[in-house]
Amino acid sequence: MEKVWVRDVGPRDGLQNQTQVLDPKQRLQLIQALLSAGLTQIEVGAFVSPRAVPAMAGSDHVVSALANTTGEFSVLIPNEKGYDLATAAGARHIAIVVASSETMNQKNIGMSNEQAFRFAKTVLARASHDGVHASCYIATAWECPFEGSINEDIILQQAEVLIAAGAKEIVLADTIGAATPQQSATLTNRLCREFGSALIACHFHDTRGMGIANAYAALESGVRRFDASIAGLGGCPFAPGASGNIATEDLVLMLNQQGYDTGISLADLATAARLTRQWLPGVGVAKSTQWIERQIEKGAL
Amino acid sequence: MEKVWVRDVGPRDGLQNQTQVLDPKQRLQLIQALLSAGLTQIEVGAFVSPRAVPAMAGSDHVVSALANTTGEFSVLIPNEKGYDLATAAGARHIAIVVASSETMNQKNIGMSNEQAFRFAKTVLARASHDGVHASCYIATAWECPFEGSINEDIILQQAEVLIAAGAKEIVLADTIGAATPQQSATLTNRLCREFGSALIACHFHDTRGMGIANAYAALESGVRRFDASIAGLGGCPFAPGASGNIATEDLVLMLNQQGYDTGISLADLATAARLTRQWLPGVGVAKSTQWIERQIEKGAL
Repeated sequence: MEKVWVRDVGPRDGLQNQTQVLDPKQRLQLIQALLSAGLTQIEVGAFVSPRAVPAMAGSDHVVSALANTTGEFSVLIPNEKGYDLATAAGARHIAIVVASSETMNQKNIGMSNEQAFRFAKTVLARASHDGVHASCYIATAWECPFEGSINEDIILQQAEVLIAAGAKEIVLADTIGAATPQQSATLTNRLCREFGSALIACHFHDTRGMGIANAYAALESGVRRFDASIAGLGGCPFAPGASGNIATEDLVLMLNQQGYDTGISLADLATAARLTRQWLPGVGVAKSTQWIERQIEKGAL
Repeated sequence: MEKVWVRDVGPRDGLQNQTQVLDPKQRLQLIQALLSAGLTQIEVGAFVSPRAVPAMAGSDHVVSALANTTGEFSVLIPNEKGYDLATAAGARHIAIVVASSETMNQKNIGMSNEQAFRFAKTVLARASHDGVHASCYIATAWECPFEGSINEDIILQQAEVLIAAGAKEIVLADTIGAATPQQSATLTNRLCREFGSALIACHFHDTRGMGIANAYAALESGVRRFDASIAGLGGCPFAPGASGNIATEDLVLMLNQQGYDTGISLADLATAARLTRQWLPGVGVAKSTQWIERQIEKGAL
């Protein structure tokens, strides 16, 4: 059985977009539920200003509480200060974000393209020196809400720069959930051929109901690393009902049923999803989860 | 732009599985809304016992009311009496169903495999003679809830028999929504190569959240004809665990965005979906529809 890695980004990307704030203790409980389901890669926090992002307050506590737990616990780093704080708390996996377009970098990170890539190179150099594993997200890798569709050549060039600077993983992020499966296929195909699939991951949002089809298309192109979010957390709080990341349950059901080795138990994922809905009552039930719950009722899972 | 045909089966397959019954006048209004959105193929009724299936009572009225409307309006025929009634009402497109497995034929249609195929051949011969266009559904084409996964060779043999008997279209139906995208790809690939894609259609259910990924996989294998259901209505009362068809909005959004010519307007589809939800308050809003509604609000659609 071929291995596929699933990273749950619910405790960071997911929770950051909820109106309701979970405290570090609850977030650790959610992380434990994900670990119990077999997830080994989890995005557990962000070293951002707790005033700006109250949902991520206490990420240092979350990271240090996981010091003796086996797993790859990544944290989002928006700047060098964040890097200092994260590594001081004991983080060994970091994630940084650059956007594909000038406007998105300005609006999302408050930097020009040049500044964003300079920051990335600085942090990647420090991470290499410190033996910290650094993933680099290219946001709006297919389409930018401001500049429209992004030329594939740009993404290839950006990935090349970031890999040369020490990125251990390039995560192609469809930040606004705008990519089609055919676009997913063509871009991931080029990246996997150019850099090898060990370096390429995908991060899809299910905004238009195409997230799982996009993941399938990337899988067929050779991608073996995916982000997903428990219960599909990650919807925008300003657009009620708007979809978040692809649900971990949807992705793992597809992968497991297709015979890939994810190491993840669907029944235990359903438990983690139940915990999520209990704390965040606005969160819906993914179709896969409804099916999984019926299987559990019947004793088939 | 390459043409892809989308048939909305909401007014039959969809409504038949709702607890609430719409009268023929409402069903005609829904059909008109679908026609206004650009759909030209619609499953509009079933010639079944109105006692057994109250939701389809008055299908003769629906068919005759559409006599002067341009479009391909298909009706489900469970037996020869149904064929007589449908053609007497003026139906020019019929759909018949055989299941891939003995048990499913027994449970779904109350016939053995042999009886089901004998019935199919009889009706197909009559339809050929009468110049009536006949589609033939192979139910549970990937997996049967009673007999498990179905060997592809069986589906190829069954399709061959039905085409030889006069079927103008073979519709591969994932009745319980159990297929994976990779399984969708391999079966549709074989069928398209063997019989040509003009004869092959797919009918996916979204039970496990993989319906659109399955449609994408079939599309990539050459399939250009798909069933879908407005607002994701549907299910199968005789197949335990079946849930709705893929939503027409989800499918058309993917196809239009990938540059295929469906002739269908997303904004007008959203209107038809709104009408559906108004009459059937239990029906949810597909993710694509949420996105389409936001585009309409912004004046972008």
